Amino acid sequence: MDILALNCGSSSVKYQLFDWDKKVVVAKGMVERVVIGDSFILHEVPGRETYREDSDCPDHKTAVDLILRTLTSPTHGVLRDIKQIAAVGHRVVHGGEKFTKSVLIDDEVLAAVTEVQHLAPLHNPPNIAGIEGAMAVLPGVPQVAIFDTAFHQTMPEHAYLYPLPYEWYEKYGVRRYGFHGTSHLYVSKRIAAILGKPANQCNVITMHIGNGVSHCAIKNGVSVDTSMGLTPLEGAMMGTRCGDIDPAIPAFMMQKENLSAKEIDSILNKKSGVIGITGRFTDRRDVIENANDGDRLCSLALDIEAYRLKKYIGTYMAVVGRLDAVVFTAGVGEMGAPIRERAIAGLEHLGIVLDKERNASAMTRKRETLITTDDSPVKVYVIPTDEELVFTEDVAAILNGTYTDHMNFEYSFSRPDFVRK
Amino acid sequence: MDILALNCGSSSVKYQLFDWDKKVVVAKGMVERVVIGDSFILHEVPGRETYREDSDCPDHKTAVDLILRTLTSPTHGVLRDIKQIAAVGHRVVHGGEKFTKSVLIDDEVLAAVTEVQHLAPLHNPPNIAGIEGAMAVLPGVPQVAIFDTAFHQTMPEHAYLYPLPYEWYEKYGVRRYGFHGTSHLYVSKRIAAILGKPANQCNVITMHIGNGVSHCAIKNGVSVDTSMGLTPLEGAMMGTRCGDIDPAIPAFMMQKENLSAKEIDSILNKKSGVIGITGRFTDRRDVIENANDGDRLCSLALDIEAYRLKKYIGTYMAVVGRLDAVVFTAGVGEMGAPIRERAIAGLEHLGIVLDKERNASAMTRKRETLITTDDSPVKVYVIPTDEELVFTEDVAAILNGTYTDHMNFEYSFSRPDFVRK
Ligand SMILES: Nc1ncnc2c1ncn2[C@@H]1O[C@H](COP(=O)(O)OP(=O)(O)O)[C@@H](O)[C@H]1O
Ligand SMILES: Nc1ncnc2c1ncn2[C@@H]1O[C@H](COP(=O)(O)OP(=O)(O)O)[C@@H](O)[C@H]1O
Repeated sequence: MDILALNCGSSSVKYQLFDWDKKVVVAKGMVERVVIGDSFILHEVPGRETYREDSDCPDHKTAVDLILRTLTSPTHGVLRDIKQIAAVGHRVVHGGEKFTKSVLIDDEVLAAVTEVQHLAPLHNPPNIAGIEGAMAVLPGVPQVAIFDTAFHQTMPEHAYLYPLPYEWYEKYGVRRYGFHGTSHLYVSKRIAAILGKPANQCNVITMHIGNGVSHCAIKNGVSVDTSMGLTPLEGAMMGTRCGDIDPAIPAFMMQKENLSAKEIDSILNKKSGVIGITGRFTDRRDVIENANDGDRLCSLALDIEAYRLKKYIGTYMAVVGRLDAVVFTAGVGEMGAPIRERAIAGLEHLGIVLDKERNASAMTRKRETLITTDDSPVKVYVIPTDEELVFTEDVAAILNGTYTDHMNFEYSFSRPDFVRK
Repeated sequence: MDILALNCGSSSVKYQLFDWDKKVVVAKGMVERVVIGDSFILHEVPGRETYREDSDCPDHKTAVDLILRTLTSPTHGVLRDIKQIAAVGHRVVHGGEKFTKSVLIDDEVLAAVTEVQHLAPLHNPPNIAGIEGAMAVLPGVPQVAIFDTAFHQTMPEHAYLYPLPYEWYEKYGVRRYGFHGTSHLYVSKRIAAILGKPANQCNVITMHIGNGVSHCAIKNGVSVDTSMGLTPLEGAMMGTRCGDIDPAIPAFMMQKENLSAKEIDSILNKKSGVIGITGRFTDRRDVIENANDGDRLCSLALDIEAYRLKKYIGTYMAVVGRLDAVVFTAGVGEMGAPIRERAIAGLEHLGIVLDKERNASAMTRKRETLITTDDSPVKVYVIPTDEELVFTEDVAAILNGTYTDHMNFEYSFSRPDFVRK
């Protein structure tokens, strides 16, 4: 049985085909420039050269069609028959308050996702277009929605409500939702397995640091707070997003530079964070390299980023109580040793004692590595994330009728003997 | 020698007359409804009934004139001769990056305060009007500016810069400034005296919780971070201000409700925070009372407020390193025992062990009280603030030529034998 995972953005569709029986990724790739014109597919099969085909995709349905055509192509494909696809898993960014776990998509679910699309106007509409496209192209094949927000629905009210007019919550759903749920879920299960404790007895802080960055306070195995909010703009400094700032700044700058609400939103989301400070880079490799070469603004960007990570570690230590471990994950979390070092240095009084050599050696997206000293009361681990695995296991479990929710369902990766492929 | 302290708001002028030799407040009061019409003065002299006089004050100069007339009135006054006023101290909200301490006002200073008034358009203009008014009415009398922001100018760059386009900092001065400086200064000197350590060896977190709320991370006696930012809107949940929220929310709500930048700013500053959640109250006494009577939203407001205080304690523990003490001050900090209890409860793993009885008994604006257990590694104190004393001592020291800056000048209240009057 093969499972197709789809991740539809406004102008792209990413896909991955997973062979559930062999537990391997058979093919993956992306259709770029969907809707906007000059679209093409990049199709990767392990052991083969990447295949590119230009093909017009005026909408997401055509893109899904192109993906299926490529997957079943006699020359470039990997499937003999489209019927091998047993189910499709769709990444859905915003599940609002309705979705606390992955679900089989039916009309009711589709309506509910549509209902909360005003909360993620850039993300949910293409997610919905992708679902509808896949339903049309693969009729009768079960479609499953996996939400970025679902993992965080365990947050208590005092953590998710903002000190804003309460009717904004009632009328528009203005509250903290949080994102990167599958990643926080994955690494929180892995760290429990590594610590040799049941997940529901672990208190951990998970730091997902990629282009998007979010942190999560996990108490007894469930999310009790997270740094992203109503949207993915809140929290840490990111590649292009500002994260936490004085909420007076948007209106202040709109008045100074005569900007519309859309324009300020775009600057805060696309021209801030690391690129805002450096003026040039979002990729932390460039920032680290140029900082090492003496570029003042790159150095400053690293200082600000690491300082803000450090602050969140403190914040969530106050939230979770007795802390078992901190986990770094995603591109920067897994590879950015200098950023981790600056973030963790000086936290000895809180029980975190960095092992500089271990930290420096942890620069891989494959290995799970302890980066604190053996006698550090709180352990810090680098754990490569695997959102696709959460995805695929949710889909398979829903198909098999074994799925419950992340607290009760036993993922393969929550077992101590799990070996990453 | 008498010192007059003035605090000019957009439609009010507060004053206090201090007898420097006797070290007592001789009179204090407020002119209300300045500029907007129907203005009147409320004048308080210890041991007398409050005196009220209606008198039109179309501008701040007339208000200062009314204050001086009242202070020297044969029937209601306290001064024989206006010449007894040796100096005037003005509270100035925003000193930008130019002012790191209190200063004698001359044309250059006035120009510099005017230059940064775009950062505090509601506050600096009336402050300036008050200074000009007092200069006109009391020619030749030294006028001193005491800034809300000055104490925080020791923050390092990585703490005060936002992850925003760097040119916003260069062009408009968009950065964290922080406020409530005189209050954080006062309680940080007091806690050092109480701990019996030189201030420059103390690491403390000061929590000023009044109508406005700000926290400060103080390392080796100086501010290294603070929760208010470019404006007083950032940070904790306040009486009417939201504090930290997703920075996407202003633009989101502007689009939902078709609001202008000014309108959203006004809602975030005046209709959010405690009044936003409860819909009715800003005064925490009302909130606590109604929560005790079972009002769900009041209970929720307390939970959110306390939870956010707890998070900041954790944040700043990560910032300052080894922590000596946490200090609660201002109206809610001094009187709001149930809020303090909820904020501190559950921080034992961070070395903070609340003594519930001590905390419950600390409900006074007069006494300095330890509210942790004797063996709590980190001490928590309630310390009544005294911004006016900082004010007056700065003015007197500038007059006497003994003033340096808060690190080197020895305030009366930084001495262990200081007794509060
Ligand atoms: N060697 C490295 N050092 C520091 N950062 C790295 C390194 N390699 C990759 N990264 C960072 O990882 C980021 C991508 O993270 P990733 O989690 O893959 O992205 P996304 O958030 O888009 O899923 C890149 O922008 C880059 O900054
Ligand atoms: N007994 C009390 N319990 C809780 N809060 C109190 C109590 N007394 C006063 N307060 C709070 O103190 C606030 C005023 O604080 P204060 O520092 O005097 O104000 P400001 O910030 O305007 O200087 C009031 O709004 C009220 O919420």
